[in-house]
Amino acid sequence: MTSPPIRHPVRILGIDPGLRRTGWGVIEIDGNRLTFVGCGSVEPQDDLPLASRLLAIHEGLATVLGDFQPAEAAVEQTFVNKDGVATLKLGQARGVAMLAPAIFGISVAEYAPNQVKKTVVGVGHADKNQILMMLKILLPKAEPKSADAADALAIAITHAHHRASAALRMKVMSL
Amino acid sequence: MTSPPIRHPVRILGIDPGLRRTGWGVIEIDGNRLTFVGCGSVEPQDDLPLASRLLAIHEGLATVLGDFQPAEAAVEQTFVNKDGVATLKLGQARGVAMLAPAIFGISVAEYAPNQVKKTVVGVGHADKNQILMMLKILLPKAEPKSADAADALAIAITHAHHRASAALRMKVMSL
Repeated sequence: MTSPPIRHPVRILGIDPGLRRTGWGVIEIDGNRLTFVGCGSVEPQDDLPLASRLLAIHEGLATVLGDFQPAEAAVEQTFVNKDGVATLKLGQARGVAMLAPAIFGISVAEYAPNQVKKTVVGVGHADKNQILMMLKILLPKAEPKSADAADALAIAITHAHHRASAALRMKVMSL
Repeated sequence: MTSPPIRHPVRILGIDPGLRRTGWGVIEIDGNRLTFVGCGSVEPQDDLPLASRLLAIHEGLATVLGDFQPAEAAVEQTFVNKDGVATLKLGQARGVAMLAPAIFGISVAEYAPNQVKKTVVGVGHADKNQILMMLKILLPKAEPKSADAADALAIAITHAHHRASAALRMKVMSL
């Protein structure tokens, strides 16, 4: 398999949204080479009113977008469970997290949790430790301090992989 | 009962968030006198990617905030049901809807659906038609073209009522 036809490094922002903690990770893909750029998390004070917590997430991600200037973004598709209150909270954080790149004119791809695991580890039912181990191999310079930052990097890697595959498919189709 | 101690008219924005349609309504309260200012709804094209739909809601509300310059905002608390997918969609729209006033530095109050009904109609289990009838009495100039715009006006009225009651309570306490 040859490298996909990507000639310039492309910066990708992965986001793992949450009202208590929103993880972010920026990587660069150049051909099939991945490089770690930065990662972290936005943690709004949990005693603030809801609108202020959402504003903190927005401002944190806007700073990341301004500082790192990614060209594309990706967010994990949310696992919907029976806890309606938790789903609503996550939905609110996720809406704000998807809006920030859109305001910057950047497209936001979505990937299911098992797609992320399958891309990073190779199997759809991988656990957190397996993802962390693969992150160390794929992005040796990354030292995510939270699970959310690690998840955000995994989402960015997933997008890097899928956009490269899509580019390759388009090249094959045009031959 | 005397009028609460509000000397200047205060503009209030009510928002009824939804991914398909987000209603908004602006009223003014001066003492205990309510005036209709404007209402409408933001309807993102439903074939757009999620991030673009959220951006349309954000831009629509930002335009309303810029045009009408409300001083305060209010949103209905969301009824969480067992349909996780619907709750997630609503949560995403709601997060974006609450963020817009926060970006403009405006506080966002939240009211439960039965508080809105009780304030506008007098009973917590009022139906849509009863709310529309009371809107015609309280805001005769308002002609909301959608149920969401009408709901947004009802939320704005609820906030006007509660902020006046709170001001009155503070006055009584300081006597």
